[in-house]
Amino acid sequence: MAAAPYRLSLRIYLPNGLRLGPGKIALLQAVATQGSISAAARAQRISYKRAWDLLEEMNRLLEAPVIETMQGGKTGGGARLTATGEKLLAHYRAVLDAAEETAGGALRAIAALGQIPEDTPEH
Amino acid sequence: MAAAPYRLSLRIYLPNGLRLGPGKIALLQAVATQGSISAAARAQRISYKRAWDLLEEMNRLLEAPVIETMQGGKTGGGARLTATGEKLLAHYRAVLDAAEETAGGALRAIAALGQIPEDTPEH
Repeated sequence: MAAAPYRLSLRIYLPNGLRLGPGKIALLQAVATQGSISAAARAQRISYKRAWDLLEEMNRLLEAPVIETMQGGKTGGGARLTATGEKLLAHYRAVLDAAEETAGGALRAIAALGQIPEDTPEH
Repeated sequence: MAAAPYRLSLRIYLPNGLRLGPGKIALLQAVATQGSISAAARAQRISYKRAWDLLEEMNRLLEAPVIETMQGGKTGGGARLTATGEKLLAHYRAVLDAAEETAGGALRAIAALGQIPEDTPEH
């Protein structure tokens, strides 16, 4: 099957002011993959401070922290997702998958409204 | 039924570079409701130039313009959605509705991870 002719991103706003969008989610995924906040920040091309602020915001506004740091702690030790962090990632992916699955027709209809690229021979 | 404990927004990226998110969609809805670009811009609390730039970008990157202006044209006459503009709005709403319908469980699970507000008596 060809790649979808669009990319979908979603942002969830909670009543306590927390916004969960592609940036925070990608950062959590990067922490899970990289095993440290500094490596995750580099992988996401954001500053360590920015990564820390985003993670701290989630830690503060969710029922429990999304990551836990080990040894060196904030200044460079390892970090990994907590159960809450894992749940958040899994639920977010479920929402995205459900949207793409159920709304595939409407998404393709929107994509079809997009101008045909100039390098398509028949146009 | 109680209001959902979250708000969802989505952004669709097309290969030609067009991003369709809540801002452009709300602007289109405002043009449909208000009947002019200047009134739509005021309703959206954006400048006329910003509204015009967003609409022009959609006009340029979709198969056909999303709005058509009447009489005074760009400088203040009426404006309304074209068939392409109406289709875009309808498809976008369909994607949002489908996401909320299919992914309601996962969305509520994410919302449940949000901290309980301080003014909730039982906490």
